[in-house]
Amino acid sequence: MKKIHIIGLGLLGGSFSLALKKVKPEIHFTGYDKDAKNLQDAFTLGIIDEAKDKADPDTDIVILATPADSLEGILKESLDQAGQDTLIMDFGSTKAKLCQSVANHPKRSQYLAGHPIAGTEYSGPKAAQEDLLDKKVFIICEMEKTDLHLKGKAYEVLEALNMKLRFMDPEEHDNQLAFVSHLSHISSFMLGKTVLDKMEDDKNVFDMAGSGFASTVRLAKSSPAMWAPILSENKKNILEALSMYISNLSKFRDKIIADDVEGLYLEMEKINAIRDILDLK
Amino acid sequence: MKKIHIIGLGLLGGSFSLALKKVKPEIHFTGYDKDAKNLQDAFTLGIIDEAKDKADPDTDIVILATPADSLEGILKESLDQAGQDTLIMDFGSTKAKLCQSVANHPKRSQYLAGHPIAGTEYSGPKAAQEDLLDKKVFIICEMEKTDLHLKGKAYEVLEALNMKLRFMDPEEHDNQLAFVSHLSHISSFMLGKTVLDKMEDDKNVFDMAGSGFASTVRLAKSSPAMWAPILSENKKNILEALSMYISNLSKFRDKIIADDVEGLYLEMEKINAIRDILDLK
Repeated sequence: MKKIHIIGLGLLGGSFSLALKKVKPEIHFTGYDKDAKNLQDAFTLGIIDEAKDKADPDTDIVILATPADSLEGILKESLDQAGQDTLIMDFGSTKAKLCQSVANHPKRSQYLAGHPIAGTEYSGPKAAQEDLLDKKVFIICEMEKTDLHLKGKAYEVLEALNMKLRFMDPEEHDNQLAFVSHLSHISSFMLGKTVLDKMEDDKNVFDMAGSGFASTVRLAKSSPAMWAPILSENKKNILEALSMYISNLSKFRDKIIADDVEGLYLEMEKINAIRDILDLK
Repeated sequence: MKKIHIIGLGLLGGSFSLALKKVKPEIHFTGYDKDAKNLQDAFTLGIIDEAKDKADPDTDIVILATPADSLEGILKESLDQAGQDTLIMDFGSTKAKLCQSVANHPKRSQYLAGHPIAGTEYSGPKAAQEDLLDKKVFIICEMEKTDLHLKGKAYEVLEALNMKLRFMDPEEHDNQLAFVSHLSHISSFMLGKTVLDKMEDDKNVFDMAGSGFASTVRLAKSSPAMWAPILSENKKNILEALSMYISNLSKFRDKIIADDVEGLYLEMEKINAIRDILDLK
């Protein structure tokens, strides 16, 4: 492994490079970001060794770490230009439409559809952390469609980062992620909105906020440039999850209206099962 | 300050005692919990020095740290029995109905309505932490109704715990807390329910959950014995907050249905204002 090129030098692309440089200092990192400031910051922070518009033909892996709506175009272009021994791997949060878009591409076998389950509410190269990916899950979709030798290059770096590989169908991935990631972001943004709206009448409302509020609203700090495209790309699954959520909230509200304290108690007690499930993870 | 009696030896009552014992080791703590196991644990953990059904007449402060629906009865009984130099102070999460219930009590001036803004998703004496209250906000309602000398006893211990005092009207307290605490718990419980319901079809859904999900669903581990009464006691304000939340979620869903990516972007960008507000706290 000699050369890696990263397109999109933000939180994920940056964290990937910083972590890999620690364990594989021999790799030369080139990279590109359409935002000139991010590109400059990434160089200054040591995320890339060299800024380059395009990957060199002898690049081992090209990482695509840009927002979900830009990936289709960049993936096609990267495959078109890829040297014959280059693997293209993306870090996108939605997989079905992207896999579909290159299903018949002549170089499909040079692509690995990936998704690291890691992130924070911050974005950009300055938010990158060398331990962000450590021991996190990395989902690979349609692994059977990728060339065996090129796949080996991906495994080499992902294992060097202690990531735990999981293999999934892209449709299943997008559906599950709508429930355990995308919905959390929506619930958090709307909680933020509700309290901000309240603040227009009552300026001091945030003074009373404790750690519970901070925890549930944290994701409302997330980047709209990342999340608006995800909401659109994964529309069908997100609408399924969001509609179930709204329905559950409405039924819970009905119980409060009906003074059904016992019903509320029993409902919450059942949901407490999440204690064991999350602790097992 | 010689003697403090705590009724309800759970997370808050226990954390209060553990912290105060460090800075004021001379105080003798007596206490009671209707759950015999909690009472025994509290003694074993050093939360109380002595188990007692009732406060001694020379007790300086009686702390009421039981669930919201039990407080009215315990507060009245404690006031009835209180020695003339004893302050009764509660830690309840709702204040309006409780203050109202003792408005005409002959010993009203011996009561201080309090609420420490601190907690975790765990409960019981074993969940108590000696640093839980440190530097947290402590809200006092109707402070003008409490005897000056007795209020001084409360200030002495709250300041010894580095708590930051805030003074509020009970109605205002309950309304604000509905938005920045009670609503967070409901959003978290219903998020947990939505994903648990999904798990019935798809057992592996939790494997894909990252730190964002864990953060938004953390409060769904909270105690139903504490929360069912709060939902009932603060019904009017919680319904106001919850209805605004459901309405915001529904409007956000409409934007997703309409493929209004720009509208979603602008909405989330506006909500990002919460970054500065939370960081200022």
